[in-house]
This record gives sequence, structure tokens and C-alpha cells, in this order.
Amino acid sequence: MQDPKTTAANSSDALAELRATLGADVVSLPAEFDGRQFADWSGTPSTTPLALIRPRTTEEVATALRICHRHNQPVVTQGGMTGHAGGACVLGGEVALSVERMSGVLEIDPVSATLTVLAGTPLQVVQEAAEQAGFMFALDLGARGSCTIGGNIATNAGGNRVIRYGMMRDQLLDVEAVLADGSVIGGRRKMIKNNTGYDLRNLLAGSEGTLAVITSAVLRLRAKPTAVSTAWCAMPNYDAVTALLGRAQACLPAGVSAFEVMWPSYCDFIRERLPELRVPLGSEHAYYVLLETCGADPERQSAAFEDFLADMLDDGVIADAALAQSEADAAAFWAIRDAPAEYPRLIPGRVSFDISFAVAQAGEAARRCDERLRARWPRATILVYGHLGDGNLHVVVQEPGWRDDAIDAVKEVVYEVTGELGGSVSAEHGIGEEKLKVLGLSRSPAELAAMKAIKLALDPRNILNPGKVIAM
Amino acid sequence: MQDPKTTAANSSDALAELRATLGADVVSLPAEFDGRQFADWSGTPSTTPLALIRPRTTEEVATALRICHRHNQPVVTQGGMTGHAGGACVLGGEVALSVERMSGVLEIDPVSATLTVLAGTPLQVVQEAAEQAGFMFALDLGARGSCTIGGNIATNAGGNRVIRYGMMRDQLLDVEAVLADGSVIGGRRKMIKNNTGYDLRNLLAGSEGTLAVITSAVLRLRAKPTAVSTAWCAMPNYDAVTALLGRAQACLPAGVSAFEVMWPSYCDFIRERLPELRVPLGSEHAYYVLLETCGADPERQSAAFEDFLADMLDDGVIADAALAQSEADAAAFWAIRDAPAEYPRLIPGRVSFDISFAVAQAGEAARRCDERLRARWPRATILVYGHLGDGNLHVVVQEPGWRDDAIDAVKEVVYEVTGELGGSVSAEHGIGEEKLKVLGLSRSPAELAAMKAIKLALDPRNILNPGKVIAM
Repeated sequence: MQDPKTTAANSSDALAELRATLGADVVSLPAEFDGRQFADWSGTPSTTPLALIRPRTTEEVATALRICHRHNQPVVTQGGMTGHAGGACVLGGEVALSVERMSGVLEIDPVSATLTVLAGTPLQVVQEAAEQAGFMFALDLGARGSCTIGGNIATNAGGNRVIRYGMMRDQLLDVEAVLADGSVIGGRRKMIKNNTGYDLRNLLAGSEGTLAVITSAVLRLRAKPTAVSTAWCAMPNYDAVTALLGRAQACLPAGVSAFEVMWPSYCDFIRERLPELRVPLGSEHAYYVLLETCGADPERQSAAFEDFLADMLDDGVIADAALAQSEADAAAFWAIRDAPAEYPRLIPGRVSFDISFAVAQAGEAARRCDERLRARWPRATILVYGHLGDGNLHVVVQEPGWRDDAIDAVKEVVYEVTGELGGSVSAEHGIGEEKLKVLGLSRSPAELAAMKAIKLALDPRNILNPGKVIAM
Repeated sequence: MQDPKTTAANSSDALAELRATLGADVVSLPAEFDGRQFADWSGTPSTTPLALIRPRTTEEVATALRICHRHNQPVVTQGGMTGHAGGACVLGGEVALSVERMSGVLEIDPVSATLTVLAGTPLQVVQEAAEQAGFMFALDLGARGSCTIGGNIATNAGGNRVIRYGMMRDQLLDVEAVLADGSVIGGRRKMIKNNTGYDLRNLLAGSEGTLAVITSAVLRLRAKPTAVSTAWCAMPNYDAVTALLGRAQACLPAGVSAFEVMWPSYCDFIRERLPELRVPLGSEHAYYVLLETCGADPERQSAAFEDFLADMLDDGVIADAALAQSEADAAAFWAIRDAPAEYPRLIPGRVSFDISFAVAQAGEAARRCDERLRARWPRATILVYGHLGDGNLHVVVQEPGWRDDAIDAVKEVVYEVTGELGGSVSAEHGIGEEKLKVLGLSRSPAELAAMKAIKLALDPRNILNPGKVIAM
């Protein structure tokens, strides 16, 4: 397997050719974009790029990459800048390529249930366009107003509905992208089944800008649920949590659309710091589950949901439950789960983790993290919660006045547990720059070598987002 | 990008080293496996391999590949030999590596809803193990008794439940595989969400033995449906077919688990040649749909299904419908759809296609195929049917006493239509050897170049299943 070309970039030539070929409107220099932010939500340090490229078309992206490829000029692609792993940060020496001008829904095909969209389109715009056409676009996450479809694909975004509809990769029918040498792959195919060789679409999903620049995509639309049933359940122990998950998946006619688990410390934190959210039920239970099912036929679904909860109470699976009687009730339950949006104000300087395990192991993982963190930092705020139906835990740790080295020590503890239990160091946020050091806990040396070989095959000069995802 | 090493294989050295290292029990020579068949179900010519390797462990697979890699010795991996594209055929000069001894379910984790299995295990064994544990394994296809899980992964198999549960790739949590150089990737991870770099699992799914030898996998189990509702619907026109699909997905509480469409010529063929199957309803309708939903809660589901069918009749979407009143009724409907198992007897020498389109285009594709085929071969049997909820059409053409060149002419017609409408030349059967010539209708030169680069990155000496999937 070949080594990356280590020829130094000839940046001044690259910049001159980019500007001469694409024009000053597309390629601007630092003095011209003074004050623009190039950091994402991860806190990863980000510097100023050598130039900012804002193409309007796939052809302009291809032209830009051809020039950068020829001059070994590194490129970092940027979308909504809402990432949690530093994947879109500027490490130094790159030009930034923003897809912000490639925005808009190109077509909705209601018969095929597809939506064709440019990469720079915000997720929320896609959700609203799908809604207006009588469908649902299934991906949903907190950053919906800012994050872009291209970024959602590049990071294989997860979010609230994975348990029912899968990750971003599961919403893709085709992805158009420009490879490092400027060649354009993919396009506008709408087939659900297409076994014609290697699955480039799934290779690009989650590659975080290191294999190609994503320019457009054909997305799958789903039938819009017309009935949503929601309950807040208090659970006696972890076995009951997994039992509820299994029985809900088996017994609820429309399956499970959300299964969010909160540990008591999380609920106590909300009670204390955000009392206006009124956490339901008592604080004496071992776990709390926000359970949701969504389908059609509101009357039959409500009846089935109530029957199911009654059975779970009778069988002792659930200790207590609050059933949402209205959309407002359901929104109030979700507000508790969505409280992390308030973290920047409530627990500044926190360390956050996005780890996953087999569902059977997630409870033990949380227990070990909590125990070891608490032993070392007894006064810290330690919050555990997550999309447990997918085995995905979020762990958040903070202590006012922490020294910088505490953050690294906290990471060591949590990632040690992740490695011990064969978990993933990134369930849904990706690797970016931030998790590069711990990737080896979740991937074997042979897998890292295979990834590196693929990277070099598609980007032999390592110009696409170097320093992210895979160490070259 | 590098060119494939064209160094000739040193087969006699390779065979000697394989036999010396792995023993005569694992490595047998042609005189020792006399009479064994090496052809699949596609009819692609297959010859005798230089040797037959039957490893018992992943380590033995790795040893075999290390030796073959060193001697540039081509290897074709074989599972149940039920493929439809010649992907497992022996083209000449290969050793065959059969996973038949690597068979068995290693573990079922009911809490995580996972099943860990060796690659040589037949699909039906997995289905039965899942069933016994109270779950369902979602992949299902006609060859279930013979096809192996490794082959299902390697070809990204589809089948009857794709509309609800996806293809084989959607059942995978992790895949263990041996790369060309003998390194082992993947393993026994059970996480549903795992965004740690490139998705090797999805790259292997559908790579048909050209990137790695799959040795085991962790599969996802699903809740077992306890209620199945089935109807046979007569449709006035194609718009009604797509309307029924959209409304069924929106209105049936558990969604759609099968949406099989049959053109009238298919039903007439069954009436004439297999009268014992008793095709329901009259023969005067434009299309017939086998509609199925499966979920929990039999009583509420039956009521909702009947209400739905009544609405569709009232709205003129359905012209007529027969509702299965029993499992026997439903089985009788499915027997009509499963009649292709009788083709070898009824229409020997047929040409079969497995093509896909956007759902909105599939009707037009079928119309063009039928019209052009009929114009040229007026007496031919032309059957059209398919998993239309996924845009997947099967087209079967036969005329007794055809000359050999007619087969190529028929392929030309059908693939011309596929190319015109931007369809896929292989929806679920893969490319293998048989469809290599037409791959360019569904993949651009840039995509083929990217696939070739990936192939060379992971198998630089092109020893894994050469002559299949991608022309090197």
C-alpha cells in the first residue's frame, strides 16, 4: 500500500489559480472575510483558512478541487458548523470550502417518495418541504435550523428518531459528490434497491469530508405519522428498562419511535436547575424512560398504547407512568429530554461524551462511568442519559473551577470504560479531530489500515480534510 | 492510481504451500473432489477450481489468503451457490474457498436483540434460531434453505421484506472478514450506532467476494410480528397502484410489509399453467397487488386493515379485493407470487431480469419492455412482476426453440430501457460475472474508477474473485 504523497502544498500558486479561475466572488481571501467564524460546536480550536471558497455549482466545486489536487492544497469542507467533533474546523494551512450557496430543494417526487436537495440546505428546510408535500423527512436533531444536509451526510447524523428510521445513511438513495481529483460521482438516482457494485453512498456517509465534497443527494421520504403517543415511565431497575424496550417493540402496533432513558441524577439536575420543566413522577426511581410510538389511526393507537402501559404496570415492568394527554403534555416531556440545549448556560466548561454499547451493556457502562468519576471528582455534576433504544449514551461531566488537565483525566476514565466493554467512542457525532486519539479503542489496527488504504485510493495526495477521522 | 499487479500466479507453489500448511483435510485437489458442482443458479459457465479450501476457522481463512496473496493466486469464495449473477462461479485458474465448515449460530443476545453467526450458516438456520428466541430475522428469500449468511452479506441480498426491514446490509451490526493479505477486520460488535470512521461493513455488503472473505457477522433481530393481514387487490391502472402504496404506507398502523405487483400477463400465465393455484378475482384488471401488513395486536390490526380496504374501494383506488381470512388464504396468495420456483419446469431457457427504477418510473419501464419485446418476439412468454414497493421489477422472457443469439437480443432490449429511465441493472442479485458488461448503464465512468481504486487499495494483487463485479 502506498504512502501519502508528502509533497508540500504550493499554496500561493493554488490560491492564485483558484482566484483567477473561479473569480473573487467565489474565492475570497482573509482580509475579505474578516470576522467570520470558522469553529464548530465542539470547542476544537479553529484558525483562519488561507481562502474561503463558496462555489455555486457542482462544476465549481470540481474546478476548485482539481486545482487544489494539482497543488497539494488541503481543503476543509464546511456546512452549518454545528458538529461536535471538530470535523469542519480549520487546523491550519487549509482553504475552506463552504457549501452555503448550494442550497435548495430541487425536486420532490411524491410518487417515488423522494426529495432531491443541494448539500448546503439546512435540515429544517428539508423537513418543512417534506411536510408540505404530505411526507416526513425522518432525520431530526437539535441543530436542525443550522446544520446542513451535506453535513448530516458527511457525519452520518443520528438524533431522535434513529430507533424507528435509522441514521442519515438510512435516508439516502443517492449522493452526488466530488472526489479529490475533481471527478464527480453519484447523482440523482431514486432507486431503493441498487446492487451495482460497491456502495459508495455508504462509504461517503460518515467520512466527514475526508473522501469527497458532497454536493447533492436524493433523500427518502417517509409517510407522515398521524398519531403520536407518549409516556413518561419510572423504572425499578435496568432489567426493567431493557424489558420495556423489548416488549414495546414486540407489542406496540407501530413499534417504538423514541426510547430515551434518563438516570436519576439527570432528573434531579433538571428539578434543581430548571424547575419550570416540572419533571413528572417521584424522584425515587432507578431510571426514567420517555417512550413514544407513532403511526396512523389515532384512536386505535391510543387504546393500544394505554393497554400496553397497563400491562407493563401489572407486570411490574414499569413502577409508575404518566401518559401524555395532549400535545402540550408530550412537548413538556420532551422539554426535559431536550434540556441539554441549556448546558452552555448551566454547566459551562463541561465535558460531553457520545458513546454506545450493546443495549445489554449500556447500563453497566453507565454504572462504571458514574462510579469511577464520582470516586475521583465527588463534587462534580455527572449526567447520564441517551437514546438507549440504540445503545447510545450521553455522559456529561462538569465541576466549576476545574483545571484544564481534569478534562483529559475525565476523558481517560470514560473512554477506558468504553474500551473495556467493547463500545464505540462515537455513536453519532463522528471522529473529526477531537476523537482521533481514541479511535483505536473502537477500531483494530487492521481496520485503521484498511481505512487508510481507502483514503489514499480516493485522495492520494491527502488534500481532503487532513488531520480528521484517520491519522495518515 | 496504481494499476493491478499483473504478475502471473505461481499456482503450483501456492497449492503446495496451501496443502502443506493447512493439510489435506482443508485443502483438497481436483481428483479428491471429483463430481462436486461449482456452478450457481445463474447458468454462468463454471469450471473446476485448482483446489478446494474448506477452512474451519477465521485463522485458517487468513492463513489461506496470506499464502494466495504471496503467490498472486486467485480465490473465489463460495457459500450456498444460489446466486443469480455468477458471482461464485469458477472462471478458470482460481482456488475455491468454501465456508461450508464455518457454520453455526454462536450467540443470541436477547437483551441487545442480536445474533452472532458464522458465515457458512444457512439463512433458514438463522431464521429458526431467531424464531426460537422469540424474535424474527428479517431477511427472507426463496433460497433460504441453501443460501448462506456470508453469501447474503456478500451479495447484499434483498427478498420479500425489504419494504419494511431493508436489505441484508440493514440487518448487519458488524461483519468479520479477512482481507486479501490475510488481515482480519471487524468482529463481534453489537452497537446499533457506531460513527467511528469509514463504514467497512457497508462496503463489504454487496462486494461479492472481491474485497474480502466474510467469516462471521453480528446480525440484528427484530420483534416477531404477531399479526399478519393480507389482501389480493385488483387495480384499475398504474396511478392507482402507486396511490395504494402511498396510502397504505400512510394509513396502515404497522406500515407495509409486502407490496408485490403482478402484471395481467403474469396472472394469466399462472391461470393457464398452474391452475391449481386459483388466482383470485377476474382477469380483466390492469394490475394485481399482494398487500401485506404485519404488526402486533391482531384484533385492532384486522379492523384497521378492513377499514383501509373499504376506504380504498370507496375511493376507487382498488377495483376489487380479496381479503385473506386465514393463514391458508394468505399462503395461497403467496403461492401465486412464489410461482417462479416452477420456471425451470415451465419455461426452460428463459431470460430473467432483476432491474429497479424510481417507483414513479417502474410502470413506464415495464410498458416499454413489454412493448418492444412483444414487437420483436410476438409469441414469447413475457412475465412482469416484482417488489414494486421498492421499485424492483422482475422481467422474464422465454420462447420455446429460441436460438442462442435471441438471449443477447432480449437483454439488449431490456437493458436499453433500464438505461433510458436511469434504472439499475441489478436491484438485488448483484453483478457477478453475468452483469459486468452492463454495469456501465447504471454506474458512471468516475464511479467505476472509484470502485477500481477501492478494489486495488484493499486487494492490490487482484486475487479476490477476479473477473467479477468490476473490470480491472
